[in-house]
Formats: sequence, structure tokens, C-alpha cells
Amino acid sequence: MQIYADNAATTRPSRTALDAMIPLLEEGFGNPSSLYSIGQRAKEVLEDARARVAKAIGALPAEITFTSGGSEADTQALYTGAYLGAAKGKKHLISTKFEHHAVLHALAALEKEGFEVTLLDIPEDGVVTVESVEAALRPDTALVSVMYANNEIGTVQPIAAIGALCKEKGVLFHTDAVQAVGHVAIDVKAQDIDMLSMSGHKFHGPKGVGALYCRRGILPRNVIYGGAQERGRRPGTENVPAIAGMAAALEEAVAHLPENAAKVSAMRDRLIEGILRIPHSALNGDAEKRLPGNANFCFEGIESESLLLLLDDRGISASSGSACTSGSLDPSHVLMAIGRPHQVANGSLRLTLGEDITAEQVDYIAEAVAEIVERLRAMSPLWRDLQEGKCQYVIQ
Amino acid sequence: MQIYADNAATTRPSRTALDAMIPLLEEGFGNPSSLYSIGQRAKEVLEDARARVAKAIGALPAEITFTSGGSEADTQALYTGAYLGAAKGKKHLISTKFEHHAVLHALAALEKEGFEVTLLDIPEDGVVTVESVEAALRPDTALVSVMYANNEIGTVQPIAAIGALCKEKGVLFHTDAVQAVGHVAIDVKAQDIDMLSMSGHKFHGPKGVGALYCRRGILPRNVIYGGAQERGRRPGTENVPAIAGMAAALEEAVAHLPENAAKVSAMRDRLIEGILRIPHSALNGDAEKRLPGNANFCFEGIESESLLLLLDDRGISASSGSACTSGSLDPSHVLMAIGRPHQVANGSLRLTLGEDITAEQVDYIAEAVAEIVERLRAMSPLWRDLQEGKCQYVIQ
Repeated sequence: MQIYADNAATTRPSRTALDAMIPLLEEGFGNPSSLYSIGQRAKEVLEDARARVAKAIGALPAEITFTSGGSEADTQALYTGAYLGAAKGKKHLISTKFEHHAVLHALAALEKEGFEVTLLDIPEDGVVTVESVEAALRPDTALVSVMYANNEIGTVQPIAAIGALCKEKGVLFHTDAVQAVGHVAIDVKAQDIDMLSMSGHKFHGPKGVGALYCRRGILPRNVIYGGAQERGRRPGTENVPAIAGMAAALEEAVAHLPENAAKVSAMRDRLIEGILRIPHSALNGDAEKRLPGNANFCFEGIESESLLLLLDDRGISASSGSACTSGSLDPSHVLMAIGRPHQVANGSLRLTLGEDITAEQVDYIAEAVAEIVERLRAMSPLWRDLQEGKCQYVIQ
Repeated sequence: MQIYADNAATTRPSRTALDAMIPLLEEGFGNPSSLYSIGQRAKEVLEDARARVAKAIGALPAEITFTSGGSEADTQALYTGAYLGAAKGKKHLISTKFEHHAVLHALAALEKEGFEVTLLDIPEDGVVTVESVEAALRPDTALVSVMYANNEIGTVQPIAAIGALCKEKGVLFHTDAVQAVGHVAIDVKAQDIDMLSMSGHKFHGPKGVGALYCRRGILPRNVIYGGAQERGRRPGTENVPAIAGMAAALEEAVAHLPENAAKVSAMRDRLIEGILRIPHSALNGDAEKRLPGNANFCFEGIESESLLLLLDDRGISASSGSACTSGSLDPSHVLMAIGRPHQVANGSLRLTLGEDITAEQVDYIAEAVAEIVERLRAMSPLWRDLQEGKCQYVIQ
């Protein structure tokens, strides 16, 4: 059995996305900035895609700027918010300790440019509180950036409440919604979101394309320089085939969102139930306030890498956390942020289910994980020490 | 007859590029940062593409960083060179007045960050002299950036000579080779190029992907922040299908470069000969030192826009200059730089031929241009004034 259970890392492009994209790759190659017919047809495709992406999150077409992906959108949003604040003498930025590195590293760069950054602590359940945001606000706060849903543990944040708070206080609010768009219902107006980042390949669109929503009145700051494309907000010849593919994928995801979310959540809960039968295992993050497809665990006495390789041998694609940091030997900053000690953070497993997941597959995964964990523990010195009482279990 | 003669704006993806790309879009969706087989297969495709792109310009694979396109590569190169210089107290940057806006606008941003920029004047023939670069060099010069070939008038610059000069003087040398890669033979080592930008869709690859070459020892500075992809040099999930498409297109272009360049140059010369039969017309830029496919003209007494629309009616896709600045009412900064007055710069025509161009098509274009120019002049007040001696011809 082959089961792709790493949909947080990337998703398979949907047939709908491919069908929108491939004919444009083959025949719709015009430059949308060109006056002649071939160019103008590409321009129409581009603007149609913009309208569809906007509609999917309750935005206006003019509020959407296409980017090369989520990291670029995040970087641009943070630089936009920071420098809009700086122009008014506000140089304090608030975010959280478990953001994606696109946000954390952009904030680190902004710190070097003279901004002050407060990173909020994360409660054990992986859900930021509105109160913690409010407590961090200062008169010179320019921007609050809180991710919509965490990319590792999948916890969904109280975005509308943070948005309302920021609106009340007159502070810009950005959310990195890369993991959320297409998976949970988003309405930027109802939720008082000023800026939002998305990435096409996280909801069955193509790679290499994303979008930045900026509420009307917020002019995105360039991070890449060049021509006048995207009304001067993002240069470079527009990647029309990929943009059209992303729009098609998003429209499809949003159209089927309620039933997909219900189905996938049920499968996720079945998976969590199955895996938590393993002794000394724990779910990371709140069981309810999480993305439909995300299940993330810690196990005592094992290392993630061996678990992942043995799962791969059984046809299961899974990860220990973010693909963007794989290869790093440091434990996940997200698991650290929610208070998991090294001892168990090194034994994490992220399973992120797609819409086509079946109960049979879920049971197969749970069984495989249980068997492999048992096998790895049998040869683990740490597990032996735990069993012999030479060190303490973190997870009871 | 349908003739696409705007290959400097964008090119049709080749069958080879599409055949490399589409199967990966459909089945090769793995995240190359992932440990499992699907991810590792994507990683292999990525590294194979890197080796092929490197080989095409005489670089090492580790010297290639994939980007979202030419503008990003240019921005990153300029920021890299500028801040490497700043670290040594060198804050002077040299470039030219007729660079692409990706370079000019990045330089403007760097000026605001405290760098000093010298933009070289351009001789009438559109070819920068090595002497002008040498004269501008200062002890605090950090970087010289001269485009390989101009995107409007197609003139090819003395890159190897500028590279040798910069090497001798210990100054970093970047070239925006977006228009040149795949069209003229490039060897970054033989030409002493430290950094080079390219864009996939300019040589029959897909849009939304490019590459930055940085000589070993030059660590690219981030302009986008995020994960550890591309060895920390450029974050964001790698767009493997597009990268593979670009590599395939480039390999094909380089394999057939000598015969394509010979054929297209001959067609270009036939086109230039045909169009210069029009009275009061002139070629922009040197007739010899230019890209194989580029022909750029000025005509007295007409406006480009009407010419382009009437050419489109006859099935010919052409432009007045850069697609990146279309929509702007300002005359081309490139034509201004080579000394064309407004009077004729507003009546420019860029025809950029593809490898499949035929003599019959060239003759059709030349005839169409001649007829349309005559028709437009017949109703042009400026042309009447010129004919009646009320103002002077710029082009005799």
C-alpha cells in the first residue's frame, strides 16, 4: 500500500489544477504585459485567476498580489507591515515562537534593521491566546503576525479574535495562512485580517506560486525589484499557467471544504485514537483546534529518522515536522515552543492526511507505526533506561 | 499568417521542456526536502537539473541557486555584491543607464540604504566600453553590474573584457544575462563572471523559474526569508517541475546554439535590410554586436502603439520595447540612453525572432511594417510637419 501522509509538506496537484495549467503551458505562453492578442489573452487568464483567488478568501481582486510562494508572501508582508509602521515611528513587531521560518527569519532580518520583535510564548496546547497578544501590544507596535495554523502540529489560532483586537488597537495584522487556505474557511473581512499569505502547492495547486492578500490601502513593499507587473507590487513576468492552476485548485478546495473537512477530521481522529494506543505516546497540540488532516505525535524512546525510513519502507510518506528544516539536527522549534523536552521532541511524527484518505489506510498507518515504534524501542538504549527507571518518562 | 516576433518578452516553452515538466507536475510532486522515497526522487531531479544548468554556462552545480525568475536573481545578485562590499567598507556600485529595471530599481533601493551608484552612459551603438567601466572604478567600488545583452535593442556587451578588468581590480562582477542565456555562448569561468542571472522563459523554458550563478566563495544574500532549501540561499519548496523544464530547455538551446544563432542572425539581417528600406527609419543599436534574434527600429512620424495594434491585426506579435514597462507613457529609458530623442523614441518597434522563423515570415513582417508605417504616416500631424519642413527629421 502506498499512502502519502505528508500533505503539510506538499500536496499532489489536483486534476483540476493540472487541467487549468497544462494547456496554458503548451499554448498560453503570452506575456500578459504585451499589447497583442496572445498577451491580452494571458492577461485575461491572469485577472480571472486573481478574481477567483480573491473570492475564495473574501477579498477583492485588487487586494491580491501573486508571488512565487508562501515564503515570499510572508517576507513581503512582514517588510510591508514593519516599514508602514516605521513611517509612523512605530518599530515594534509582535509574533509567536512557533511561526514558520519564513516569518521568524524575516523578523530576525528586521531586527538587524532596527525593529524590536516580541515573540509570544506558546501554551502547551499550541493555541496562542488573544490575551497574550493584547498583553504584548505597545503604543509603538506596528504589526502583529500570527500564523493561521501551525505547519507542524496543525493547531488553528483564534484569528478572528486577534484580528478584532488589532483592528480595535489600530495595529496591522498579518497571518501566515499557508497551511490553512483551502483547508479551513477563511474570510479576511469578517476576520479583520489585513495581510494574509498563501502557497499554491499546499492545497493541490502547483509549486512556485503563492499570493499575498493586502487589505485595500496597504501598498505591499517590494522585496524583489524589477518591472511594473502586478501594478508595481511584484515584478517579473507573471507565471500565468501556475497562477491559473493555483486558482483552480483553490476554487475546488473551497467548494468542497465542508465535506472534505468533515471527512478528513474523522479520519484524523481515527488515526489519533489508533496511534495513542501505543504506550508512552502523546498528541502534540490541541485535539480539537487543529487542521482537519493534521496529527502530530511524540513517542518516548525513539528517534524520528528511523521511524520515517521504516514507514517509507511500508509505503507511508510521513515526516517528523517541517520539510523546510529537514536535514537540521536541532529539535523542532515548534515542539520546543509547546514545552516538549528534547527527550521526546526527537521522537516526533507528523502525519498529514489528504482528502482521499480511507479508513483502511488510516488503520494500516496506525498499525505500522505501532509495530515500528515497538521494534525501535526494542533496540533503543533510552527506552531500556526508561524501562529500568534510570531516567524518567516525559509522557506517562 | 501568425508570427510570434516578441521572443525577448517571453518564448513558447519547447516540447522538450514540456516533456520534462508535465510528468513531474502529474506524478513527481514530492517535496525534495523530505526523507521518504517520493521526496528523494524529487531531490534527484532537482540536483540533476542543477548540474545541467551549471554545465550550460561552464559553472559548478554548487554555484547555481534556483530562483523564481530573472528579477529575483538580479535583486539577489545586487544585494549580495553590495553587502559583501559593505562588509569591507566598499559602498560604491557601478552599472549602466540601460539595464533592466530589476537592476536599476534594486540599485535605487540600495542607494536609499546608503550605497553610492554610478550609472555609465551608453554610446550611440548601445555597447558599453570597457574604458568607461575602468574610468568609473574607485577604491571603494564593490560591484560592477553590466547586462550581457540589452533586452530592448539586443546589443551584446564586452562581458569577457569587463570580467577581466574586474578580476584584475578585485571588484565583483555581475551580469544580468536574462536575454543572453541560451542565445549566445557563455562560459562564466572563461569570461570571469562572478554572478550571473538567468530566466527560464526567455529560452523556451517555463515562466516562474530562474537561476543565480554565484562563483564559489560568494554566498548569496537572502532577499526572501524562510527554510533551509537551496542550502539556505533561497527558501521555499523548490519548484522541481519548472526547474527540470528550465534545465531541459537550456540544455537543448545550448546543444543547438551555433546553428540556431547562424540561422536566426541571417533572418534578422534579412529583416533589418527589408525594414530599413522604409524612408526615415533606423536600426537601434550596433548591427553586428547584437543578439541573433533582435531587430529594433525607430521610425519618424509614427507612434508605436498604433503600429503594434495593426501588426497584431495581421497576425504579428511585436513590441515597442520591454514588456515589463508596457503601459508606461514614458519613452524607453534604453532608447533615451543611446541618445534617441523623444520624437523617434516614441515610434520604436522591437522584433525578436524565434528559432523557427522563415524567410517567408521575415518578408511578410517587413512588408507589413512598411505598409502600416506608410498608412500611419499618412494620418500623422508630425509626419506632415516633417514633410512640410516645420520640424526637422532626426533620422535622415
